Amino acid sequence: MNMKNRELVLLFSEDESHLVEVSNRVFHTRSGIIKLKELKKKRYGDKVKTHLGKEFVLIKPNILDVLEKKLKRLPQIIVPNDIGMMIAYTGIQPGSLIVDAGTGSGFLAILLANCVRPGKVVTYENEKRFFKVAKENVNISGLGKFIELKKKDVTKGIYEKNVDVVTLDMKDAKKVVKHAYKALRLGGWLVVYSPYVDQVKELVGEMKRRKFSEIKVIENISREWQVEKGVRPKTAGLTHTEFLTFARKLN
Amino acid sequence: MNMKNRELVLLFSEDESHLVEVSNRVFHTRSGIIKLKELKKKRYGDKVKTHLGKEFVLIKPNILDVLEKKLKRLPQIIVPNDIGMMIAYTGIQPGSLIVDAGTGSGFLAILLANCVRPGKVVTYENEKRFFKVAKENVNISGLGKFIELKKKDVTKGIYEKNVDVVTLDMKDAKKVVKHAYKALRLGGWLVVYSPYVDQVKELVGEMKRRKFSEIKVIENISREWQVEKGVRPKTAGLTHTEFLTFARKLN
Amino acid sequence: MNMKNRELVLLFSEDESHLVEVSNRVFHTRSGIIKLKELKKKRYGDKVKTHLGKEFVLIKPNILDVLEKKLKRLPQIIVPNDIGMMIAYTGIQPGSLIVDAGTGSGFLAILLANCVRPGKVVTYENEKRFFKVAKENVNISGLGKFIELKKKDVTKGIYEKNVDVVTLDMKDAKKVVKHAYKALRLGGWLVVYSPYVDQVKELVGEMKRRKFSEIKVIENISREWQVEKGVRPKTAGLTHTEFLTFARKLN
Amino acid sequence: MNMKNRELVLLFSEDESHLVEVSNRVFHTRSGIIKLKELKKKRYGDKVKTHLGKEFVLIKPNILDVLEKKLKRLPQIIVPNDIGMMIAYTGIQPGSLIVDAGTGSGFLAILLANCVRPGKVVTYENEKRFFKVAKENVNISGLGKFIELKKKDVTKGIYEKNVDVVTLDMKDAKKVVKHAYKALRLGGWLVVYSPYVDQVKELVGEMKRRKFSEIKVIENISREWQVEKGVRPKTAGLTHTEFLTFARKLN
Repeated sequence: MNMKNRELVLLFSEDESHLVEVSNRVFHTRSGIIKLKELKKKRYGDKVKTHLGKEFVLIKPNILDVLEKKLKRLPQIIVPNDIGMMIAYTGIQPGSLIVDAGTGSGFLAILLANCVRPGKVVTYENEKRFFKVAKENVNISGLGKFIELKKKDVTKGIYEKNVDVVTLDMKDAKKVVKHAYKALRLGGWLVVYSPYVDQVKELVGEMKRRKFSEIKVIENISREWQVEKGVRPKTAGLTHTEFLTFARKLN
Repeated sequence: MNMKNRELVLLFSEDESHLVEVSNRVFHTRSGIIKLKELKKKRYGDKVKTHLGKEFVLIKPNILDVLEKKLKRLPQIIVPNDIGMMIAYTGIQPGSLIVDAGTGSGFLAILLANCVRPGKVVTYENEKRFFKVAKENVNISGLGKFIELKKKDVTKGIYEKNVDVVTLDMKDAKKVVKHAYKALRLGGWLVVYSPYVDQVKELVGEMKRRKFSEIKVIENISREWQVEKGVRPKTAGLTHTEFLTFARKLN
Repeated sequence: MNMKNRELVLLFSEDESHLVEVSNRVFHTRSGIIKLKELKKKRYGDKVKTHLGKEFVLIKPNILDVLEKKLKRLPQIIVPNDIGMMIAYTGIQPGSLIVDAGTGSGFLAILLANCVRPGKVVTYENEKRFFKVAKENVNISGLGKFIELKKKDVTKGIYEKNVDVVTLDMKDAKKVVKHAYKALRLGGWLVVYSPYVDQVKELVGEMKRRKFSEIKVIENISREWQVEKGVRPKTAGLTHTEFLTFARKLN
Repeated sequence: MNMKNRELVLLFSEDESHLVEVSNRVFHTRSGIIKLKELKKKRYGDKVKTHLGKEFVLIKPNILDVLEKKLKRLPQIIVPNDIGMMIAYTGIQPGSLIVDAGTGSGFLAILLANCVRPGKVVTYENEKRFFKVAKENVNISGLGKFIELKKKDVTKGIYEKNVDVVTLDMKDAKKVVKHAYKALRLGGWLVVYSPYVDQVKELVGEMKRRKFSEIKVIENISREWQVEKGVRPKTAGLTHTEFLTFARKLN
């Protein structure tokens, strides 16, 4: 099957690779120019040459290629193992309805949307600047059909009902706990991502007051190992990301 | 919408909860008997009483409720944060084709199937005893449509083509690296779960020989925190699960 | 050189070992009786036999043998790597003057006394029950000459001057910060051992108010590895001990 | 008591501090010149002014001030918590006899010498370049009386007898295990510092063959916490130092 217009394609070579959108434009690699309309005659696995003769293989990208190579970043990003834990722990699945706030760059919403389609992620962001970046990113990701971006203050209320999972990555998460409780279906989960452990204390207190069950606070420490002459953990790296608090609505 | 025959339902009360299948049988709680056919007249959120008057709320279970409360366990199980990292890191999504080996209890295959439907997980298990347990578990999970269980030795070859992700949790993973390379689509990932760090060294060597790219070895240390009078990590717990090795087919 | 009366000796065999005091008593091993006065004719490296013929080698114990095999324990004990870090980080050395509170079982005071002799550790304990246990333990340790046990409330004041290091392992550590500042010499360190991270926040605030410098909060996670068929971290163990806060008096 | 010639003194101010040796020289701070012979009339706690009027307090340094501010560094250095663990775990104390190899920059030998005086650390280094650096550092440290530097290949043998602790931080540690066994007293410890976990496997095998007991492999992960607006682990830092292997001679 040939490439379609606007399809995202990974152009791979040993020393440089790029994520491009099939179009009528021209793309500048470090070793010459590629006319992107040529891709329309190609399939995944085929090769394309720049005008200087450098070859690139066409590879079907996954959502992480898109996130890493194409989307606009904002300072703080949830790392894959924390997102993965949210998914594996709450049972997020195709068809799930998720409410997310604040959107930030939209990375979490996009990754979750990719997991729940044909379900939906509704994501709240009240700050103009972030809303604009998120909108662009959602657009590029090609997952706009499964993401509803709301420019609203989520501390004022959540309008959705029967939600499977609510994810919060925001300063005032504590103020959203009661709204999350109302919005969630029985059996649904609230997940909060907090940078500071003292915030977690207040958050857990509020969750208990609002009748959440199975509250659990998890911290993931991921280490990358180096396998060369010998095997050892890399000596420097991220030593901490953030704290994940899980709470379930059960009655 | 009322409950259907064979539907899995979580019966929740403060002090005991159960996962049951709607049927014509009778279920014994610690506080009396429930006739399961009564559930056919109920909806999620409704309550049901035992013959001694104890009330349970009916909650729609997620895949983790099913894994924890209903499936037969075998000794070694991949923990949620490792599974989550596999998903988040490789871009597993609805529609993906995954090959998995060895099946073991089937937990990983079931969790992945839940993520990829309407895609498929093909899972290889050569040991009779495990195959039988996995078959039962797949059956109970209700995800049989998305899981193909093969009683085959995966070190002899993988029969699928154009696979998005291959996951290996088995002793001889090293012998499967070349088969995985052939089976994967360009851009696809191989993920291996290894208990021993010296196995990882040989595994990475084999991956390099077989032309895999972006090889990464990750160890996840998850800590649960206790939030009571004060905030502190729980003092004892799992200090290690296993090593995750990721490798991508890019040319 | 022969054993002296009251000397502590480690009796070692492959399957049982004991720490005994040279005396005129009799000691019951699991394989017969040893007359402890026989040890007076022996040297380290010699063997001694029970009346049933079982042999034990006489080994000179170190302070950790004494702590582990001979002293009375109370619930919470500082682990070796945390004690080690205190020593290595503050420059505790022979001749140092240390003030310690609360004494608890006396383990920390005894280990520190062993490092500073011919210096001194002054240790404050206000609770009768702990004071009694600590007194016994100091006595058995043979380090009584280098330890001064005070049955006093350290939150009321520290009477020593020109102290090199103050170590606190107690609930109200915050209230002792100002006394520690007065007691310390210029260049000296205050080290506080805290179970809860929210206590640490208040503690650090108080240290800043009291003009301490170079404040540092450290958490040690020690993992034991298992080296058998393969190499891997032990899967369960202590995942956390306590938080160490260091602060230095520099002006 | 006034300062003596060659005494090391910490000159402290809020924005710069220096470790200097009392002498007839002149010292250049960032805010003017100090004549070091003026220090001979001062005591700890007194102040000294540069010719531009900037004040410094005179503080008695500890061994870590000397290591950090005065000694010449070589690439790899054992960190304080690993050194601390060696001390706390093996019962190193005033009077101990320690054999150390390879010396490297001499940091470990100097820190241990500071703990064992009036005992002794004998340290082996065969590489000329390191030997020279170590000699200078030992000299500056003022602990030369307690350190014997040997320009010898320790894999050929250890000449000391009745040693309390042998510490190895070198590539061929495995070849020294048998010599360490001979040199150690009964009850003494061998401690090896290894960067790679696959080296540890061979090392432990050799320790078992040579009849060592109580073999333990420890990895210390130290995290520094940040206490400001909120409390959280610092997000980046050392995620690993090296592996510590302990083994005891008991028969």
